[in-house]
Amino acid sequence: MHDSRPILAITLGDPAGIGPEVIVKALTRPDIQQLCRALVVGDRRILARAATWVDQPHLAFEVAPRPDQGAYAPGTISVLDLHNADPAVISPGQISADAGRAAVESVQRACDLALAGEVEAVVTAPLNKEAMHLAGFKYPGHTELLAERTQAKRVSMLLVGPSLRVVHVSTHVSLAEAIRRVTPQRVREVIDLAQHACQALGIRRPRIAVAGLNPHAGEAGLFGDEEIRAVMPAVAAARQDGLDVSDPLPPDTVFLRAVKGEFDIVVAMYHDQGHIPMKLLAFDSGVNVSIGLPIIRTSVDHGTAFDIAGTGKANESSMVAAIEVAVQMAQAHAQTGAAA
Amino acid sequence: MHDSRPILAITLGDPAGIGPEVIVKALTRPDIQQLCRALVVGDRRILARAATWVDQPHLAFEVAPRPDQGAYAPGTISVLDLHNADPAVISPGQISADAGRAAVESVQRACDLALAGEVEAVVTAPLNKEAMHLAGFKYPGHTELLAERTQAKRVSMLLVGPSLRVVHVSTHVSLAEAIRRVTPQRVREVIDLAQHACQALGIRRPRIAVAGLNPHAGEAGLFGDEEIRAVMPAVAAARQDGLDVSDPLPPDTVFLRAVKGEFDIVVAMYHDQGHIPMKLLAFDSGVNVSIGLPIIRTSVDHGTAFDIAGTGKANESSMVAAIEVAVQMAQAHAQTGAAA
Repeated sequence: MHDSRPILAITLGDPAGIGPEVIVKALTRPDIQQLCRALVVGDRRILARAATWVDQPHLAFEVAPRPDQGAYAPGTISVLDLHNADPAVISPGQISADAGRAAVESVQRACDLALAGEVEAVVTAPLNKEAMHLAGFKYPGHTELLAERTQAKRVSMLLVGPSLRVVHVSTHVSLAEAIRRVTPQRVREVIDLAQHACQALGIRRPRIAVAGLNPHAGEAGLFGDEEIRAVMPAVAAARQDGLDVSDPLPPDTVFLRAVKGEFDIVVAMYHDQGHIPMKLLAFDSGVNVSIGLPIIRTSVDHGTAFDIAGTGKANESSMVAAIEVAVQMAQAHAQTGAAA
Repeated sequence: MHDSRPILAITLGDPAGIGPEVIVKALTRPDIQQLCRALVVGDRRILARAATWVDQPHLAFEVAPRPDQGAYAPGTISVLDLHNADPAVISPGQISADAGRAAVESVQRACDLALAGEVEAVVTAPLNKEAMHLAGFKYPGHTELLAERTQAKRVSMLLVGPSLRVVHVSTHVSLAEAIRRVTPQRVREVIDLAQHACQALGIRRPRIAVAGLNPHAGEAGLFGDEEIRAVMPAVAAARQDGLDVSDPLPPDTVFLRAVKGEFDIVVAMYHDQGHIPMKLLAFDSGVNVSIGLPIIRTSVDHGTAFDIAGTGKANESSMVAAIEVAVQMAQAHAQTGAAA
C-alpha cells in the first residue's frame, strides 16, 4: 500500500536543549502522525530520556536505517540513530562541545538525506551557537551551516505565523544601516523572494503587501522620502513583471490588514517592523522557513531554552507548526515542482 | 443623594463623521451609564439623527444647561446643546466648513468646562482635519487645539490598549530623524512622562520598560550603539531618581512581556515601534490620552470614517474604552491629586 504522507527529517537540535522534548511531544500527536512520516535524525537514547521527562516513559521507538525503511506506525517514533550523544555525558541545560558536535551532525545528515531525495523536507530543532562553536564549528547559525552544506548562494528567511507571513529587506543590522539598505534593487529582490516563498507554500498568485519605511509610509514625502525614492520604483518594476504588489503601506496597519486576509505576505523594511507583529501574534507557534536553499527546510523560531531543558515544560507548538508548514511545502512541491 | 459617578464632557466630533453614532452606542450601554455621568457637548439634533441610524429612534435626550444640572438617568442621553449643526445641512460623510466649525466649538466648550472644574474629564470623538481647516481653524489636530485653549506648553500622547500602554520618544518624523531624536535628554524626558502617565492612571510605582532602538537592543553594540550612547545614560539617571526602569530591551519581545504583565508601560523609540503592536492588540479599542494638559483628556484612536458615517455600522469599542480610561484617571485624580 502506498503511503502518501511525505517523509520529513527532524533534526534533534542541541541534545542538552528542549529540542528532544518538543520533538517527542509533537511526534506523538495523532494529527502530526497522520500528516507525515517523521524521521528523527539523532541519538535514540537522548530521545528516550526526553520521553521520560514528558510523561511518556513507555514510548516505542523504531530505528530505521534508511528513511524509506521505516514503518512510521502510530504511537511510535522513528529514528535514524546517529548514536552520537550519550545521555550519561550530556546533561540538560549544559553547554558542551559533545552536544554541539552531535547537533551539527544531525543537521548535516538530514541535509544530505534531503539533497539525495530520501526525505522531502527538513525540520530543525534549536541549536546552541556556543556549544557549536566549542565543537569547532564556527557558523553564526543554522542558516550558514545549511547554506554551506547545500552550496546555496543567497539564503533568506521567511517568518510564518498562524495568520501572517513576513520577509525582510534586512535583519541583523543597526536601524541606521537598515535605512541605508532600503534600495530599489534590494526591495525588488525581496518582493521576488516574497513571490517565490508564497508559491513554495502553494499560493499560485500571492497578494504581496509592501510596508513603508516611515510612519504613515511617509505621508507623500512629509516624513521621509524613501518610499518615493526606493520603494515605489521597486513596486513599479515588480508590477511590470506581472506581480500583485501593493504601494508602500502605513507600517502600523499593514500587518493587521494581512492578518485579516487582505494580503498573503508582507515585505517588511527592517527586522523589528516584521518581528514585533510576528512575536505578538505567534509567540509560541512561529516558524522560520529558509528560502533559497535547494531543499525544503523549516525551523522552530525559539532557542534551546536551557533554563527549562529537562523539566518537560517546553511548549511544542512551534515544532508542530514547523512540521505543518514543511508538509504544506512538500505537497506544493510535489504538485507544481516549485522549489523554495 | 450624592452621585459619586464622575461627570465627563463628551465632544461630538465632526457631526458628519461616525462620532455621533459611536457616542449614542456607547452612552446607552448600562455599564457606561453606571460608570459615569456623561454629558455630550454638541447639537442635540445631530445626536437624535444618529440614534435613528443605530436603531434607537425612541431614545430620550435630556438637555442640561450646566453639567451639574443634569439628572443623568438610565436610558437617557444628557446633552449640553450647542445648537450649532443642522442635520438638514450637514450630510453624513461630507466634508464641510459648517461641520468643522461645530466640531471645534464642541472641543472648546468641553475644554472650558474642564478648566472651570465643572466636568472632571473630556473625552473626544474624531475631528476631520480638512473640515476644520475649511472652517478657518488651522490646527494640525486635536492636540494643538487643546494645548492652545489650555495654554499647555508640552503635550504628549499616551496610547492605552486593553493590555498595553505606550509612550513615544518621537512620532510624526521620518525614521532617519527618529534615530537622531534618540538622545539621553529626550529619552529621560519620556521616561518621566511614562512615570507621570501611569501615576495619572492610578499606578503608584510603575514598572517602566524601555525598548531599544536597534534589533535585539543592539546586542551590546553589535548592531548600533544608540542603546549604549543614548538610552542607558537616560535609564541610569532615572534610576538615580528612584524610578523603576528596565535596561533597553529587545523591541521584538518587550511588548509581549508588557502584555503578559511584566511592565506597566513601554517607552517606544519611534512611531511604528509602538504603533505596530498597539494597532494589532487594540485595533478597535485603543485610546489616546493627552499628557501635559491641565485637564484630563482621552480620545478614541480612530478617525471620522466618512465612508461608513450614517450607516450605523461604526464600532463603539474605542469610545467605550476612552470613557473607561477617563473615569479611571478622574478617580485617580480625586484620590491622589495627580494631574495628567
